[in-house]
Amino acid sequence: MNAEELHFSTRFDGITGSAIREIFKMIDQPDMISFAGGNPSPSALPDAVAAEIAQDVLQRDGKRILQYGATEGYPPFLESLTAYAEKAIGKKMPSVLPVTGSTQAMDLLCKCLINPGDTILVEDPTFLGNLQCMHLYEANIVPVPGDEEGLVPELLEEAVKEHHPKMLYVIPNFQNPTGRTMSLSRRQTVARLAAEYHFVVAEDDPYRDLRYHGTSLPSIASMDQDGWVVFLGSFSKIISPGLRVGYIAGDSTILRKCTLGKQSSDLHTANLTQAIVDQFLRRDLLPAHIERICKDYKEQLDSMLSELETFPEGTSFTRPEGGLFIWVTLPEGIDAKPLLEEAVKRHVAYVPGTHFYALGGHENTLRLNFSNSTLPQIHEGMGTLRQLFREHLG
Amino acid sequence: MNAEELHFSTRFDGITGSAIREIFKMIDQPDMISFAGGNPSPSALPDAVAAEIAQDVLQRDGKRILQYGATEGYPPFLESLTAYAEKAIGKKMPSVLPVTGSTQAMDLLCKCLINPGDTILVEDPTFLGNLQCMHLYEANIVPVPGDEEGLVPELLEEAVKEHHPKMLYVIPNFQNPTGRTMSLSRRQTVARLAAEYHFVVAEDDPYRDLRYHGTSLPSIASMDQDGWVVFLGSFSKIISPGLRVGYIAGDSTILRKCTLGKQSSDLHTANLTQAIVDQFLRRDLLPAHIERICKDYKEQLDSMLSELETFPEGTSFTRPEGGLFIWVTLPEGIDAKPLLEEAVKRHVAYVPGTHFYALGGHENTLRLNFSNSTLPQIHEGMGTLRQLFREHLG
Repeated sequence: MNAEELHFSTRFDGITGSAIREIFKMIDQPDMISFAGGNPSPSALPDAVAAEIAQDVLQRDGKRILQYGATEGYPPFLESLTAYAEKAIGKKMPSVLPVTGSTQAMDLLCKCLINPGDTILVEDPTFLGNLQCMHLYEANIVPVPGDEEGLVPELLEEAVKEHHPKMLYVIPNFQNPTGRTMSLSRRQTVARLAAEYHFVVAEDDPYRDLRYHGTSLPSIASMDQDGWVVFLGSFSKIISPGLRVGYIAGDSTILRKCTLGKQSSDLHTANLTQAIVDQFLRRDLLPAHIERICKDYKEQLDSMLSELETFPEGTSFTRPEGGLFIWVTLPEGIDAKPLLEEAVKRHVAYVPGTHFYALGGHENTLRLNFSNSTLPQIHEGMGTLRQLFREHLG
Repeated sequence: MNAEELHFSTRFDGITGSAIREIFKMIDQPDMISFAGGNPSPSALPDAVAAEIAQDVLQRDGKRILQYGATEGYPPFLESLTAYAEKAIGKKMPSVLPVTGSTQAMDLLCKCLINPGDTILVEDPTFLGNLQCMHLYEANIVPVPGDEEGLVPELLEEAVKEHHPKMLYVIPNFQNPTGRTMSLSRRQTVARLAAEYHFVVAEDDPYRDLRYHGTSLPSIASMDQDGWVVFLGSFSKIISPGLRVGYIAGDSTILRKCTLGKQSSDLHTANLTQAIVDQFLRRDLLPAHIERICKDYKEQLDSMLSELETFPEGTSFTRPEGGLFIWVTLPEGIDAKPLLEEAVKRHVAYVPGTHFYALGGHENTLRLNFSNSTLPQIHEGMGTLRQLFREHLG
């Protein structure tokens, strides 16, 4: 056929694909030092344990695991997940639904709630993968500025009053891309505004367990009385992203719609991957595993931060207490997007910050991931970037 | 919150969930004889082999399998799948994308192509799960009548001229729910009309390998010159539905859009489940496995057909050459929907046929599955249904 004979749906207008996914392809070379993705460290991926568990669950419950399952989840996992989620969220949620990675959680929430033109408020900047999801639902995406403590309450309330949002999307812990953590009082404000103005808060919390400094703050969902806050959880960063297992927890009416939406999305999440995560929970393997990876990630974070100290004057950066990312603001006039190509030639990759802004701009920003590189790689790669940015000072 | 404070998206208007999924819950009792689902027989689920393979692939390639993967697929599987799909379709397709069950294939195709109000032509009756998917994209669903040979060509062309469809959805082999197979000449007509009138054909072919009588017919995709036919394949019926692995094969432009859509749906299909199916293909385990299950399913089909011979006068039914389903038309005046409740009380389940009609009606029809019941269960369950329907003759 000729391209002009086929008309794609309008939801794809302007969609060119996730910048990160495209960068992944560009940097798929063995000697690349990648600060680009949000990949766990290879040493954090429990392949030996997973191999033993996969064999075990298929031997013990293979007929059920290989058969069609309920959209609501593989029963043993639904049980262990419900207990796990209650602990993570700090509150018993009315309903929990296993999903195929928290990517699907966002897709299902948009499917349930968003008509074309409906407003979603987002942090500015925010996770670009979910921005693409919102675009595909033809949402009116309105960015709300934040500072070191997260969303600025006055600006949030102003945006709520002006735009009557259907949803607010936030990542309160070690935000992607900035690494920032929302303060306690701002979390309370978000919960209060949602109840007052009737919008759903999608609280996306995949990094919660990866804390290296400071103390844990309560979830926004735990401050919610009326079911406006929906919690999105994930096992991607603490067990494996390749298994694609996450969950949604929240109000039963909303979760029921998500379940109906999931029937037509993928019927159910693979029983096998649910059964594997179930065993990690039942055997209580996570605490020791998380302790080990946090120890490594903390060293990697601290190393990258100390490298950043010696970057060209005028460079600023966040000091995350956890998660996977540091956010860097270069001196005005340096554009991180065209420089990426040059960096890749020198075998180092990052994600230009402009991709995380709903309205673009902010060309002098970039996101660095520290979890997927060894200490020597961090030293070498940061040296390369330091040199590169020095060469391009105005 | 109160329900009236929250407004769900309009795409959910009228969506009450898959009738089959709801029936599943109703019949989840140990002594139930279920002719309702499309479940493979428990003996057809290769749990021991899958256990060995899962352990093997995680031991050999665990770090890659547990890490983020490409939306385009786990590389070894993409390779073996491309070869497999070429053989199944009888033609080298420009592009192949692994998906999370062919449920997701339909979702992605609708995502790419369907604006609210766009017309999708469907067989009448057709697979209700995909009808729900089309409803969620707010498609204008237009059913086209068929007969023993599939869609009636004159009625199809008439519908095409009148409705200018974006898509035609067909299951040419052992159709769900009727068990009918589309004749060669009608396949040629479908391919010709698509090229002439410029609509996409979604050729859904999950049952192709489950043939017990007669000879295989070429796919519609193999008759297509210009890329209008997109082929949806699945490993659910020949390996395991619980693994959720299917694929889309077709024109590269369409597949590229599906890939972008998949980025926001679930990022990628779990690498582990792709790796397991990959090993089934690489080790060439399918031919012997399919031969074994076809032998069993043929006996089950033949047994159910001979039971149907003794159903009340005026009952008619299809004689499928393969697949999983027989379609039964009861004497006028018997309504299969309210009778299901009575059947379930007697520990037998089926799916009322009305659910498969885009516009409802046809209350005297029902769908029977034979793959998930043993020969004694078929004998007993069909005896129960025969008695039940006799009691309710007008």
